[in-house]
Amino acid sequence: MASRVAQRILVYGGDGALGRAVIHRFRVAKWQTYCVDYRPNAFAHYNFTIEDRIAGQDWNPNSGAINDFLESQPKLDCVVNVAGGWTPGSISDAEIFQQCESMWKQNMTSSIAASSLAANYLRESGLLILTGAEAALGPTPDMIAYGLVKSAVHHMTKSLASPNGGLPKDSAVASLLPVMIDTPSNRKAAGESGPVDYSTWTPTADIANQIFSWTEKDRQPVNGGFYVFKTKNHKTTIHLHD
Amino acid sequence: MASRVAQRILVYGGDGALGRAVIHRFRVAKWQTYCVDYRPNAFAHYNFTIEDRIAGQDWNPNSGAINDFLESQPKLDCVVNVAGGWTPGSISDAEIFQQCESMWKQNMTSSIAASSLAANYLRESGLLILTGAEAALGPTPDMIAYGLVKSAVHHMTKSLASPNGGLPKDSAVASLLPVMIDTPSNRKAAGESGPVDYSTWTPTADIANQIFSWTEKDRQPVNGGFYVFKTKNHKTTIHLHD
Repeated sequence: MASRVAQRILVYGGDGALGRAVIHRFRVAKWQTYCVDYRPNAFAHYNFTIEDRIAGQDWNPNSGAINDFLESQPKLDCVVNVAGGWTPGSISDAEIFQQCESMWKQNMTSSIAASSLAANYLRESGLLILTGAEAALGPTPDMIAYGLVKSAVHHMTKSLASPNGGLPKDSAVASLLPVMIDTPSNRKAAGESGPVDYSTWTPTADIANQIFSWTEKDRQPVNGGFYVFKTKNHKTTIHLHD
Repeated sequence: MASRVAQRILVYGGDGALGRAVIHRFRVAKWQTYCVDYRPNAFAHYNFTIEDRIAGQDWNPNSGAINDFLESQPKLDCVVNVAGGWTPGSISDAEIFQQCESMWKQNMTSSIAASSLAANYLRESGLLILTGAEAALGPTPDMIAYGLVKSAVHHMTKSLASPNGGLPKDSAVASLLPVMIDTPSNRKAAGESGPVDYSTWTPTADIANQIFSWTEKDRQPVNGGFYVFKTKNHKTTIHLHD
């Protein structure tokens, strides 16, 4: 078999729990792995560190170093955004403004940054993966800030998938819609309210494996698709939301 | 006829073109009118001026003066947000980050502020009106920042309308979904690209009249409803989006 140029993936939030699983899955498959996060991922080939987790402008893709680097490299095969965060809260909370700003910065600015880089540095027939939320398919009065921002991510997914959406020719964009991902920070948050059944939480490796699968020949996801990840008895099923 | 306590309306963006029409319509009907904007509206009974049009935190409802005032008054009958702005732009634009921040601050922070005040100061069976966008019901690749933020406003509308949404008992929230409002700034923006047919633009008075109508007895809009305003031959029709 002839040797092949290594494929390249850029992961926003590449040193979060899910990001590390994604970098790991692609690295063992011999991809070149680029991580953007507020800490370096020691397993990634290249790291771009941002200064502050919630300082939105720091995710700005026009801020220099990432663009300069990507200009010097072959086009990317895949861009993934798995940066983000969650907060509860209703409209009557005194902290609603802070909750919204925080959710915007954590979930939306990372989505904008990843999408902007995909528009400029993804190859033709490439793949962009964003992270939405299953909960935001319906009303979210008890986590209003989280839901409205994830809803904006869903809108962006549909817009980028539409004609003249701005991604390179024959590329696809899809959103992951997790219900609950099994991460240390989610376990910590949930543990505060008593015993939890983790058998319904989605392992990060299941999501990383699905993203990897979508990059294989003829396995591209539906352009603009929302893929809901549900887990029961430790088994994850993935379905395309209508 | 016995004298009646005056009804009260608070209008975010009350000195914009649409806001002035709303304040005018309610004032002539003898309501007490409260305006929040970056300039005072001389026709309103009370004005709360914010410092900078796009400095999002200045819309913060917890910033003091407005809350202090509302605490001292009878509950509000109606809260309206008609502050906002528009910008074109696709995901590949170098200015995408600035466009998104600007749309967030203009359209979303005003929606959050108005909704938060409604949660705390609206009377039972009161009315909250937000401003969405007909365009954001579908993909908006050519005005991605605008569309994704308006989509978040739609999500907020649905969430506040849901059980435990956070508004006072028996209140209703609905969103205006204009196609194109006939305002001086919209005329100016459109005029730059040649002659325009204004007969399909919606007069501000038509929207103001509809909002007023919704405050009349037994005329409350559908809770969580999206009302699309379309104008043809200078005649405006309003329909409830499914």
